[in-house]
Amino acid sequence: MPDFVSNDQGDLFSPAGFFGCVLRGIGQVMLQNNGYAGFLFVAGVCYNSPLLGTALLLGAMVSTATAIALGADRTLIQAGLFGFNGGLVGIALLVFLQTQWMTWGYLILAAIFSSIIMTAMLSLMSAIKLPVLTMPFVMASLCFILAAAGLSHLQATSSLPPTGFPQYLIAPGNVTLLTIAKGIFNGIGQVFFQENIVTGILFTLGLAISSRIACAAALSGSLAGLLVAWSMGAAESAIGSGLYGFNNVLVAIALSSFFQKPRSVVLAYIILAMLVTPIALAAMTAALQPLGLPTLTLPFILITWLFLLAGEGFSKIHIEKSQN
Amino acid sequence: MPDFVSNDQGDLFSPAGFFGCVLRGIGQVMLQNNGYAGFLFVAGVCYNSPLLGTALLLGAMVSTATAIALGADRTLIQAGLFGFNGGLVGIALLVFLQTQWMTWGYLILAAIFSSIIMTAMLSLMSAIKLPVLTMPFVMASLCFILAAAGLSHLQATSSLPPTGFPQYLIAPGNVTLLTIAKGIFNGIGQVFFQENIVTGILFTLGLAISSRIACAAALSGSLAGLLVAWSMGAAESAIGSGLYGFNNVLVAIALSSFFQKPRSVVLAYIILAMLVTPIALAAMTAALQPLGLPTLTLPFILITWLFLLAGEGFSKIHIEKSQN
Amino acid sequence: MPDFVSNDQGDLFSPAGFFGCVLRGIGQVMLQNNGYAGFLFVAGVCYNSPLLGTALLLGAMVSTATAIALGADRTLIQAGLFGFNGGLVGIALLVFLQTQWMTWGYLILAAIFSSIIMTAMLSLMSAIKLPVLTMPFVMASLCFILAAAGLSHLQATSSLPPTGFPQYLIAPGNVTLLTIAKGIFNGIGQVFFQENIVTGILFTLGLAISSRIACAAALSGSLAGLLVAWSMGAAESAIGSGLYGFNNVLVAIALSSFFQKPRSVVLAYIILAMLVTPIALAAMTAALQPLGLPTLTLPFILITWLFLLAGEGFSKIHIEKSQN
Repeated sequence: MPDFVSNDQGDLFSPAGFFGCVLRGIGQVMLQNNGYAGFLFVAGVCYNSPLLGTALLLGAMVSTATAIALGADRTLIQAGLFGFNGGLVGIALLVFLQTQWMTWGYLILAAIFSSIIMTAMLSLMSAIKLPVLTMPFVMASLCFILAAAGLSHLQATSSLPPTGFPQYLIAPGNVTLLTIAKGIFNGIGQVFFQENIVTGILFTLGLAISSRIACAAALSGSLAGLLVAWSMGAAESAIGSGLYGFNNVLVAIALSSFFQKPRSVVLAYIILAMLVTPIALAAMTAALQPLGLPTLTLPFILITWLFLLAGEGFSKIHIEKSQN
Repeated sequence: MPDFVSNDQGDLFSPAGFFGCVLRGIGQVMLQNNGYAGFLFVAGVCYNSPLLGTALLLGAMVSTATAIALGADRTLIQAGLFGFNGGLVGIALLVFLQTQWMTWGYLILAAIFSSIIMTAMLSLMSAIKLPVLTMPFVMASLCFILAAAGLSHLQATSSLPPTGFPQYLIAPGNVTLLTIAKGIFNGIGQVFFQENIVTGILFTLGLAISSRIACAAALSGSLAGLLVAWSMGAAESAIGSGLYGFNNVLVAIALSSFFQKPRSVVLAYIILAMLVTPIALAAMTAALQPLGLPTLTLPFILITWLFLLAGEGFSKIHIEKSQN
Repeated sequence: MPDFVSNDQGDLFSPAGFFGCVLRGIGQVMLQNNGYAGFLFVAGVCYNSPLLGTALLLGAMVSTATAIALGADRTLIQAGLFGFNGGLVGIALLVFLQTQWMTWGYLILAAIFSSIIMTAMLSLMSAIKLPVLTMPFVMASLCFILAAAGLSHLQATSSLPPTGFPQYLIAPGNVTLLTIAKGIFNGIGQVFFQENIVTGILFTLGLAISSRIACAAALSGSLAGLLVAWSMGAAESAIGSGLYGFNNVLVAIALSSFFQKPRSVVLAYIILAMLVTPIALAAMTAALQPLGLPTLTLPFILITWLFLLAGEGFSKIHIEKSQN
């Protein structure tokens, strides 16, 4: 494996040092400060779509370079904290906007913007000791996707949800064993907005290399999200494509990483989060329907913040929070 | 009156101690740390609808039990601060969603969730020394009601406002003395989402037992909300059913409870809040119309927060704020 | 020029002292603590519309008087910080609501409310050391405009955007040199919601009297907003009428005023803000379309907050922030 995949915290200005930050940044999409995981995540995206793989790398490079150029905290840059938002912005813009020359410039600007938002939020959230998570990605992406409506040189793809008033689902379709098998791995693939089982498996391998707990959390999270959604009558297509899984995957990884020792009450607390996350997803999907916007990782962010904040106030939980 | 209505701060794990917390929790819906008030509030809801009375008790019990199980602050539990959000969630879900078996499980999960949000917000708001008020109820209820759109095992009732773009009201209808008489007591009943004059009178009695100032504030608040709405041409049906009253009732109780000594400038300040609250309600009603959501007690929360925060900066007001 | 235009910080209760605060308050709309600038801004608005000029003065007087009556911080009142939100509220309500007797009372109440929000936000934002900017104006105006939908004595004008789902722009129209020439000065005029070139020129003069840097920032900001919007295919009508300019004008004035010494990296940082502001405007315009609301100065506020907050975390920027 090439040298720059290493986790060595080298010189930011050497190519190897820079690419190390970028790959760890891509690893941080699943909260892994690990270049090998990042490498497998890139591989997984490229397997499904070389175009999106390129957008992922470009976005992560631009946002990391922005942080270096403006003098952000060196330790945070080396931990990849300025790569994951830009990388996800890169994928999201090419999924939801048509790929024209203008789109690439737009993508670069959005990736730069994501590092401004990241720095602003790091300062804001440090006061309440919460990790920023992927909020800068969500804010930059929703802003740039929504803005395209008024800017005729940018046009949406059919991946954007149609605008409309929320409507009650009547016929959800039949969930089969195949739906569940697909759903588990698509749920992991959808963390990078990829609906592809092989991609999901490559991501799982990347997680396994970095942390067995994170890998187990991701698989159980994907399954949990899917089962909760199914039990409440969510649409079969959404379940099979992993849409009800990926926020649960991220919540499970995030909450399990904030523990010191697993105890049964903490496990119950995480299971509670698993039950609530698909409901938050369904709510936000309806809330964004008049604007025709995807929810991205917003349910993950809000549920994780809530459970981390509340954890502090419950003497039986006392989750240890790390900076992110 | 049975023993558990007493305000004795007994053992949380004894049935009497637990039910005491639950009833004080229901009292806290109108900011009364008083089990007798809570008992009369339950009676008022049951008079209008035994089903909703059951939902109120169940929600308050579940959210209080959650707080005990996870180890929330014992003093807060005993003051009923983990009961009122769950109790209101219980009513709101059965008012706006069809009562099926699944709905009861959904209600229990939402009540548990309200205690997570409460604890998270207590931690967040303590920094700015603002009371949480009924925000956890609003967040949990809107999330669970909106989510039902994508979950086919849950269906809305006709109580939910229809989705649509906000439209300017042309013909508000004639306000008569009967509208006003009904409106005053319905405005108090609507604090628990009950449109029933006897229920409103029972609530008023409950308040009178707990605090004469709160009772006077509630009656004047309900009248003020109604008169302001009427003078600006609000719909007669909304005025008569108390929809323009209940947020004013709560704002009046909340602001009057944060005083030390009433002075004329403070009275003017509260009257100002009475004038602005119906406008905030009309605005939020329009804002939530594309999603077909009710505003619940959101106007009360935001106006109270604003006036408490601002009170600190005005040397002639200096409202004393208590933790909630 | 009359005595009360002077910047002398006299007695608040004398007519001259009071009018000094009001005029400096109107100057603060463009972040100028300068009564002469305020006087020229009033003149500019009156040139376009004596009615709106009256509303501006009335709003600023009411919000300033509210702050005095409730005992807000004297230094802030004298710096005009309780005038600009009320003044802008006055204009916005008469632009978007039909002028009836009721509307003037509504305007006065909204201006009073803007001083409550200002005081609340000063207390809230002081913790994170961010200026409040025109957020109280935006909150009070959007609340009162939206509320009018449910209050039949108040009716909207045709200036309000029609409600609807965001739609992708196909034919933006041809931008000519005339569009650009008009756009630059309209962009400055639109800070007070005036589409009038002479008004824009009077505002520019007012800025020049107060601060050459602010004047240069305003002109370059207006041009930058227009060029960015044009390059991305925004509608010609929006460009020519200055709608893509005024938020950039304010961001440029605000960010340039927070410097100590201009350096090239800081200049690049401001240019970045110039690139992002029109995109934020396009996004918020789409986001508010289902409610048929104008974005007012919301893009300015959010982008300025983001860049100020982030500036603290970038060692190469370190913007000095002043209280506002």
